[in-house]
Amino acid sequence: MFTILKKDKKTKARLGELKAPHGILKTPMFFPVATQGTVKTLSNEDIIDCGAQAVLSNTYHLYLRPGLDILKKAGGLHNFMGWNRPILTDSGGYQVFSLAKLMKVKEEGVEFQSHIDGSKHFLTPEDVIDLQLSFGSDIVMPLDECVHYPAEKDYARASLKLTNEWAMRSKKRFTVDRSRAGGGDKSGPSPLLFGIAQGSTYVDLRREAIEGLTEIGFDGYAVGGVSVGEPDELVGDIAQYALALLPEDAPHYVMGVGTPVDILEAVSSGADMFDCVMPTRNGRNGTAFTENGKLVLRNAIYTDDFTVIDEGCDCIACRNGYNRSYIRHLIYASEILGLRLVSLHNVRFYVKLMKDIRTSIEQGKFTQFKEDFLKKYR
Amino acid sequence: MFTILKKDKKTKARLGELKAPHGILKTPMFFPVATQGTVKTLSNEDIIDCGAQAVLSNTYHLYLRPGLDILKKAGGLHNFMGWNRPILTDSGGYQVFSLAKLMKVKEEGVEFQSHIDGSKHFLTPEDVIDLQLSFGSDIVMPLDECVHYPAEKDYARASLKLTNEWAMRSKKRFTVDRSRAGGGDKSGPSPLLFGIAQGSTYVDLRREAIEGLTEIGFDGYAVGGVSVGEPDELVGDIAQYALALLPEDAPHYVMGVGTPVDILEAVSSGADMFDCVMPTRNGRNGTAFTENGKLVLRNAIYTDDFTVIDEGCDCIACRNGYNRSYIRHLIYASEILGLRLVSLHNVRFYVKLMKDIRTSIEQGKFTQFKEDFLKKYR
Repeated sequence: MFTILKKDKKTKARLGELKAPHGILKTPMFFPVATQGTVKTLSNEDIIDCGAQAVLSNTYHLYLRPGLDILKKAGGLHNFMGWNRPILTDSGGYQVFSLAKLMKVKEEGVEFQSHIDGSKHFLTPEDVIDLQLSFGSDIVMPLDECVHYPAEKDYARASLKLTNEWAMRSKKRFTVDRSRAGGGDKSGPSPLLFGIAQGSTYVDLRREAIEGLTEIGFDGYAVGGVSVGEPDELVGDIAQYALALLPEDAPHYVMGVGTPVDILEAVSSGADMFDCVMPTRNGRNGTAFTENGKLVLRNAIYTDDFTVIDEGCDCIACRNGYNRSYIRHLIYASEILGLRLVSLHNVRFYVKLMKDIRTSIEQGKFTQFKEDFLKKYR
Repeated sequence: MFTILKKDKKTKARLGELKAPHGILKTPMFFPVATQGTVKTLSNEDIIDCGAQAVLSNTYHLYLRPGLDILKKAGGLHNFMGWNRPILTDSGGYQVFSLAKLMKVKEEGVEFQSHIDGSKHFLTPEDVIDLQLSFGSDIVMPLDECVHYPAEKDYARASLKLTNEWAMRSKKRFTVDRSRAGGGDKSGPSPLLFGIAQGSTYVDLRREAIEGLTEIGFDGYAVGGVSVGEPDELVGDIAQYALALLPEDAPHYVMGVGTPVDILEAVSSGADMFDCVMPTRNGRNGTAFTENGKLVLRNAIYTDDFTVIDEGCDCIACRNGYNRSYIRHLIYASEILGLRLVSLHNVRFYVKLMKDIRTSIEQGKFTQFKEDFLKKYR
């Protein structure tokens, strides 16, 4: 399912292709985040215009709203939202632990109250696999406990033991149920199941986690528990040593990462897949990514700046001539168009960055590209 | 500047063309409302996709934010917002009287505090003309006092006397300043100045208002003070008798109207131009217009309705297959895409209604069209 097309000579960066039911993902790649079945402020046409290959959606959110019943009746999440490219669904582990109320972790699964209406729920790892297969997800993630930073080592160890047990049960259920996955062409590629390696900031725990997962065997491996409150400089460190431990021939996914700098560093360390709310969340705050760093469009300096966000950019906002002064006005006037224009620009920036990374690996110029990018960006 | 191309035989409906600096408006027509320089939730590309010929913006809002200085530096409102079709700017009379704080009407002008930051302002009718000419508006409206329903006759009479005096001063200033209007092609058509007829629900006052305005002479005439709190059935009545009093060869604009039914009735009475927040405001509430009446997409009945808003519709939302169940989900999940999809649909519905009205007048079938439409819509 995963083919490495080319390896960079100076770093661990690699160019690859991952076959998913709804299409082939060219890696390294970035998933815009469509938590509730929509990339915030953007339509499917917008996301496609940005060049995104796939989106990430969230099992916890979709399970609570609109709920499995509606998604089943719709014929899966792809039909429901009208998106026909691959979808990765996060298991919701992170959300259960961060959003839900009165959460209780048991060996059997996790008990929680909905953050929307307080209703009580109990989900096992098996339930979470069943949900994602019913959604018709292309890439399925097992239920895990996402440990926040800082975490005591004993707690991190016990937690990862549970996460790996859940991973085993998830694999078992997935293997049985794979055949009845919704959505996609049944004769085409099957959905993929990834393992999630936890272990907080402890190298030996990360190793233990990954050894356990590799023994079970997954279609890809994710580094979880990164960007969960640790200092910026640790993000790269954790990603680096966790990535070094992953099976080389499988796709490597660094969850929830990150800044353009984090992404470049992680690609150097062998990462293939990323997701992050940063482009859309920053977009809604009026902060735009450019090759020369971030622009805080709320700043007074842009009051009478009638240039587009980034002259060289081909996103919908820039190519249609929306200027910084106007976008700043929209943000201060609480006009939704402002949020959408900056989100469009930022998602395009991230997608373009990944494309440039792929091109540079293909041309054997990744290190040069990375250096040039970082020099301008910083 | 205004040419009547065809008159309906059974009603007072007429087909016309109005030349404005940024283009010719085919009438009867509808202005989507871009109060703060953006049609809420929509981009320029969206509005053009809906087929809108022009938008309406608001002098009071733009004067307060972003302010004259920025709009001048931008080279006018068209450049600022990147919109190259005609713009009508409302004078802001209605907003000063409804939004601003501590408002005082004096003969010289109107004193008020900004609803945004409480700053004090004083605007004369001359200031309001200057502002709109600096914005580069295609159609300029004079400062008026918009009397709400119900109004005592004495008050309504005194108010309209002031409004007509302001209209006289506006005309004088406009005539002097027309040459230095910003935006547009200076060698092309000049901006237009419309008069606004007030007079509340009193026929004799409406007559007095219109006689005064006609004596001054304007490029077009607007019926103001409609849809200001009066019972639904009065909207049509006021529009009807005010329209009957307007000079036949000038364009007739019924401000702030209205429902599809109100629009059809007013067209029958000789109206050429309309603006209303209804399509976008309803859009943001999740209420969609269709030929068969309104759909309240929040209703439970749409929970598992996977059809598009309106099968026959060619708007961005319908032609891309966004279904009612998904849009309902977006609205409940407070996702911006939901607001935009229904707004797109509704603006397209209004623009298409006006186009169908024009076609029916052209083909001598307006009465038939109106009857057929009302039968289905109600």
